[in-house]
Amino acid sequence: MSLLVVGSVAFDAIETPFGKTDKIIGGAATYISLSSSYFNDKVNLVAVVGGDFPKADIALLEKHGVNTEGLQIKEDEKSFFWSGKYHNDMNSRDTLVTELNVLGTFDPQIPEGYQDCRFLMLGNLAPSVQKTVIQRLRKRPELIVMDTMNFWMEIAMSELLETIALVDVLCLNDEEARQLTGEYSLRRAAKKILEMGPKNVIIKKGEHGALLFNHHEVFFAPALPLEEVFDPTGAGDTFAGGFIGYLASRGETSFSSMKNAIIFGSAMASFCVEKFGVERIVGLSDSELDARVQEFVNLVQFQIPLEA
Amino acid sequence: MSLLVVGSVAFDAIETPFGKTDKIIGGAATYISLSSSYFNDKVNLVAVVGGDFPKADIALLEKHGVNTEGLQIKEDEKSFFWSGKYHNDMNSRDTLVTELNVLGTFDPQIPEGYQDCRFLMLGNLAPSVQKTVIQRLRKRPELIVMDTMNFWMEIAMSELLETIALVDVLCLNDEEARQLTGEYSLRRAAKKILEMGPKNVIIKKGEHGALLFNHHEVFFAPALPLEEVFDPTGAGDTFAGGFIGYLASRGETSFSSMKNAIIFGSAMASFCVEKFGVERIVGLSDSELDARVQEFVNLVQFQIPLEA
Repeated sequence: MSLLVVGSVAFDAIETPFGKTDKIIGGAATYISLSSSYFNDKVNLVAVVGGDFPKADIALLEKHGVNTEGLQIKEDEKSFFWSGKYHNDMNSRDTLVTELNVLGTFDPQIPEGYQDCRFLMLGNLAPSVQKTVIQRLRKRPELIVMDTMNFWMEIAMSELLETIALVDVLCLNDEEARQLTGEYSLRRAAKKILEMGPKNVIIKKGEHGALLFNHHEVFFAPALPLEEVFDPTGAGDTFAGGFIGYLASRGETSFSSMKNAIIFGSAMASFCVEKFGVERIVGLSDSELDARVQEFVNLVQFQIPLEA
Repeated sequence: MSLLVVGSVAFDAIETPFGKTDKIIGGAATYISLSSSYFNDKVNLVAVVGGDFPKADIALLEKHGVNTEGLQIKEDEKSFFWSGKYHNDMNSRDTLVTELNVLGTFDPQIPEGYQDCRFLMLGNLAPSVQKTVIQRLRKRPELIVMDTMNFWMEIAMSELLETIALVDVLCLNDEEARQLTGEYSLRRAAKKILEMGPKNVIIKKGEHGALLFNHHEVFFAPALPLEEVFDPTGAGDTFAGGFIGYLASRGETSFSSMKNAIIFGSAMASFCVEKFGVERIVGLSDSELDARVQEFVNLVQFQIPLEA
């Protein structure tokens, strides 16, 4: 199935208690594309970078089967740059630098060959840009998944609500769900989000797993308990990439398929945090991925003997 | 199977954002006994109260099939009393009052009729008292589960380690596991605890569920996402009661049985938090409990189609 991924392709500089990086490849669409590439032969990317973005990094995406026809390169401008430092608990971080650069004027162009899009993943971006992408697709995709963050709730709430109303799955973390709805209880927060338009909502809880809600059902997937979380950067996007990648590969949008998709997304995210940046999610083997998914099965499966 | 529960039977006064109580029945052994009573006809209790403890509360325990022959009543003394106030997030609380009273000199006496004990639950108490109970049982139980808390790590670490070395399952929360081992990663913390003697460790994460580890396996059970957590007091003890109650009812100690036991414990705890104190875990019907367990099954079950 054709999958379209829209979001940032960027530079990150990351500092964790384990070390720090120079400018390395980052951005929501980078993690999403790489992660979904393990499930799909055809991942179409729409993003923008500056002339400073290394050809080798674009080649890395292409090597994973990512079609970069929709990647605009603004030769005279600079790529989006984010720098952050994680605290010792790895659950919180300080943003040190945010340079929007090319992202400040991003006008997403959809190549003609992408118009057959059946699955659309809107990575974190200004909600008005996410909405533009939906409007520029002549046929509505079967499934639109949208990721967002608290930043847009602070500066663009009305555009955010407009865009949320157009999607099938909203994906956000627990604090963002609370901020968006004013509800502390995640079950209540999910209810309010479902009233905003999406038929499904995924609430990511980081090391505590993820919850999937629709109007009638709820599903929970844990995160894998790891000995060490080395760098959480991109874990949420890698999760989203595995989620939509699995669904797109099967052409499925049912709740039961979404449960499996969340397990695959969680498995991909569990790799992501093991090394800096995208290092651990490039060149993964099928057997590594299968073994990791099996770990999730073992982690949660039980057999309650029914009394009958 | 005969189950012995040792711990505090006490008064609590609780304040949450939803209201406050006068002195109500509380204590680890109260919650454990009531919870385990749903799985066992015979729950033997060893504890101590003062002359101020209401006969009606003792009758409540007996009505649930709890044998109170081992409940010492010190007529001229006062019962243990704890008072606490929960913060708005319900995840943290301040202790307002702790009056040890009868618990300060608690010398646990095991009635002769309790000596057939095959399953032993040591609720939170001074580790030296927990150890005394083990020593006073002529035959070692098949399964000893021990709960503890950070307080003992601060004032009685060597006694705590001595007692931990004698048990089969140590049950504690995430912060306590970190404090006991000096490891932030719960997987590493579990490893260190397993080196202290227990063959299994349960790390409770409150609203984020619970992890069960042995030397080779790990199992995770979520907490049920509730619209409202009304009062978390006793949830951990109620969980422990469901856990050992299920195992004792079946005479099982395998890892796969413990997985089921954790689901039953989690189901019991999900009731506990819905009202003040023990209010919601008295008089539960079988159908209520079955329906709640089914909610847990629905919450986590998925079917990954194998490629074969």
